[in-house]
Amino acid sequence: MLQYPYPIQRAIEELQRLPGIGPKSAQRLALHILRSGSEAARSLGEAISSLPAQVRLCPICGNYTDVGACAVCDDARRDRSLLCVVAEVSDLMALERSGEYHGMYHVLGGVLSPLEGIGPDELKIQGLLQRIAEDDVTEVILATSPSVEGDATAEYLRSLLKQFPEILVSRIALGLPVGADLDYQDQVTVARALSGRRQMQ
Amino acid sequence: MLQYPYPIQRAIEELQRLPGIGPKSAQRLALHILRSGSEAARSLGEAISSLPAQVRLCPICGNYTDVGACAVCDDARRDRSLLCVVAEVSDLMALERSGEYHGMYHVLGGVLSPLEGIGPDELKIQGLLQRIAEDDVTEVILATSPSVEGDATAEYLRSLLKQFPEILVSRIALGLPVGADLDYQDQVTVARALSGRRQMQ
Repeated sequence: MLQYPYPIQRAIEELQRLPGIGPKSAQRLALHILRSGSEAARSLGEAISSLPAQVRLCPICGNYTDVGACAVCDDARRDRSLLCVVAEVSDLMALERSGEYHGMYHVLGGVLSPLEGIGPDELKIQGLLQRIAEDDVTEVILATSPSVEGDATAEYLRSLLKQFPEILVSRIALGLPVGADLDYQDQVTVARALSGRRQMQ
Repeated sequence: MLQYPYPIQRAIEELQRLPGIGPKSAQRLALHILRSGSEAARSLGEAISSLPAQVRLCPICGNYTDVGACAVCDDARRDRSLLCVVAEVSDLMALERSGEYHGMYHVLGGVLSPLEGIGPDELKIQGLLQRIAEDDVTEVILATSPSVEGDATAEYLRSLLKQFPEILVSRIALGLPVGADLDYQDQVTVARALSGRRQMQ
């Protein structure tokens, strides 16, 4: 069967490796890039090529940064007594978008997952313990996602943090999402919303 | 609000310009590229940057090619008496995928669209007339899409081609798609399927 010329074929194959991009979308994107002209293609290609080399992890918290410490660790107005532990930088950004949190973060770089070979040594747990021991942290908020792995990671950290009895360890609340219809929620969410109920004032 | 470091932000903005990629997908793609490492990012970025410069239009038919004439024009086994006129290269590829056509193509590079300022001079119509005058074409198949613009373009070409009375001019069949439920088709498709009915043998 007739194929696109090699450069187009190659671009389609490369684009298809991206998450959520199937063969049809990859073809559409490649033809769009081709039609958009040399300058636009170079600008996009350059932004992609240089991305990993230009971004590093913050040596303190593991957030992405292009300079030394990240924008959070570098911000003197943030509350250094609160430390929120997340799995990935995208989780950190989700918490930031809520506008409700003004403490510090610690990015683990994943969650415990024996099936994928991710144990405690693959996560930035040593750095977390060191920060808690050295900084004036009063509360650690475990904000891994409420999945099997996220819950297991939170439980594991909770047991590790028992070595700091003066520090409050909390778990981000699990319950019904705002705007949800109780009738349509899965049973585990409903069970957790029930067991996590709070007295109304 | 906290933003991603500039290199990530820039990649997100560039990716968002692609068709069908919104802010959320662009962020997901940028973070995926970042995590995929320098080599994978360079490979993808390079394939994109170099794409427009490496691909040109076939001087004969307007199909994409990376060398001289395209794979179709270069194929001696194809039937040179049949000429199929399409709007875009992706339409040519769709016809090729059907496996039913073994003639030549002519890619107009679009359809007539007064609203977008695309008149006959913006399309490769002169080249089409020249090919018909010089080559041994016996049938021209007008295979622009059955949209308002595609139909208008086919009608326009039909009138132009009256100057070659010995050449058969045909329009690709309009009707129900295979597997369709008559009940769910729009009325224009049903009307065209009716008016285009053929006697059963």
